Amino acid sequence: MKLYYARNSRAVRVAWLLEELNIEYEIQKFDLGSKEMRSPDYLEIHPMGRVPTLEDGPVKIFESGAIIQYILEKYKNNSLVPSFEDQEFSNYLQWFHYAEGMIMPPMNIIVVETILLPPERRTEVNVKRATKLLNQMLIAVDAHMNNRDYLAGTFSAADLMTGHAVIMADRLGADMSDKPNLLTYIARLTERSAFQKASNL
Amino acid sequence: MKLYYARNSRAVRVAWLLEELNIEYEIQKFDLGSKEMRSPDYLEIHPMGRVPTLEDGPVKIFESGAIIQYILEKYKNNSLVPSFEDQEFSNYLQWFHYAEGMIMPPMNIIVVETILLPPERRTEVNVKRATKLLNQMLIAVDAHMNNRDYLAGTFSAADLMTGHAVIMADRLGADMSDKPNLLTYIARLTERSAFQKASNL
Repeated sequence: MKLYYARNSRAVRVAWLLEELNIEYEIQKFDLGSKEMRSPDYLEIHPMGRVPTLEDGPVKIFESGAIIQYILEKYKNNSLVPSFEDQEFSNYLQWFHYAEGMIMPPMNIIVVETILLPPERRTEVNVKRATKLLNQMLIAVDAHMNNRDYLAGTFSAADLMTGHAVIMADRLGADMSDKPNLLTYIARLTERSAFQKASNL
Repeated sequence: MKLYYARNSRAVRVAWLLEELNIEYEIQKFDLGSKEMRSPDYLEIHPMGRVPTLEDGPVKIFESGAIIQYILEKYKNNSLVPSFEDQEFSNYLQWFHYAEGMIMPPMNIIVVETILLPPERRTEVNVKRATKLLNQMLIAVDAHMNNRDYLAGTFSAADLMTGHAVIMADRLGADMSDKPNLLTYIARLTERSAFQKASNL
């Protein structure tokens, strides 16, 4: 399998999974936002030039959540996915999807408005509104994490999605001062060696 | 099972699945954006007062993609999910996740800036930028749909997610004039009686 990867992107989620499962993989590494990501060759692989994309023989697949589900199914891995009978199953699914449904939309706006756009094209009200929304989304995760180590019982693929989104929000400067459960959760996740490897490929 | 629902929301995706599978369910219906969605009772069920939420005995779950996966697993339904061995499996996963990963973020901005915000607080540049981005996201779906009836071979749960997002984009005024495959795809989906029922509860 070959993973198209950039640091500080959603590709870290996929690399993190592969490292947790000790699966061998090749990477093609990009600098996030570089011209290479918009080369004709890569646009053949991902029409918007985003990462991650995974190639596995004839299979080409993008969207981090989709790739993670693909790998879990391919390797019939049950250690990172609760069964339907497990009372954490619905939590698992909910927090797996929460990353893209709730956290990343305001995060995207903050990244666009504080990093990607040239200063003269930025709009302060957008940053304020997205920061407020992101804060609400993180408060809900913090509340859920009260007396919990992970989102769905033991460490699971939900932590690869929403856990990673929380780590990125923290690094982007989201206010964590009133979210003690997220601070310990971030520490718990970032001390995992698989996370550390995946973040620094 | 009880579905918290509003017309013209992502709750239609879940109702559509339940109608396709002929599963009985109760609904609690909201008007989208109404005060009732932010009542203390409903905020106990969904911390941001969004729909859909599903209750199933002791289980409470939100995020449309999560609820759809939950129902498919509960009813062991294989008719709407290709197996790993099926060559459409990776397409299925990719387009299942594409809805929230790619289409809905710019859609959210367009809804906020053209419907939810009072006119004096709207920012035209945001609408322009989101419209351009949404158009790119839809072009990729249109390209994929060339010579296809559905996103992953036969009708699948991926159509409930990205298909629904495409229908919503069209209704919100996205330019479909250069996307002939999406126009026929929208017609194919919206003529399904399960979709019609789910849209008009």
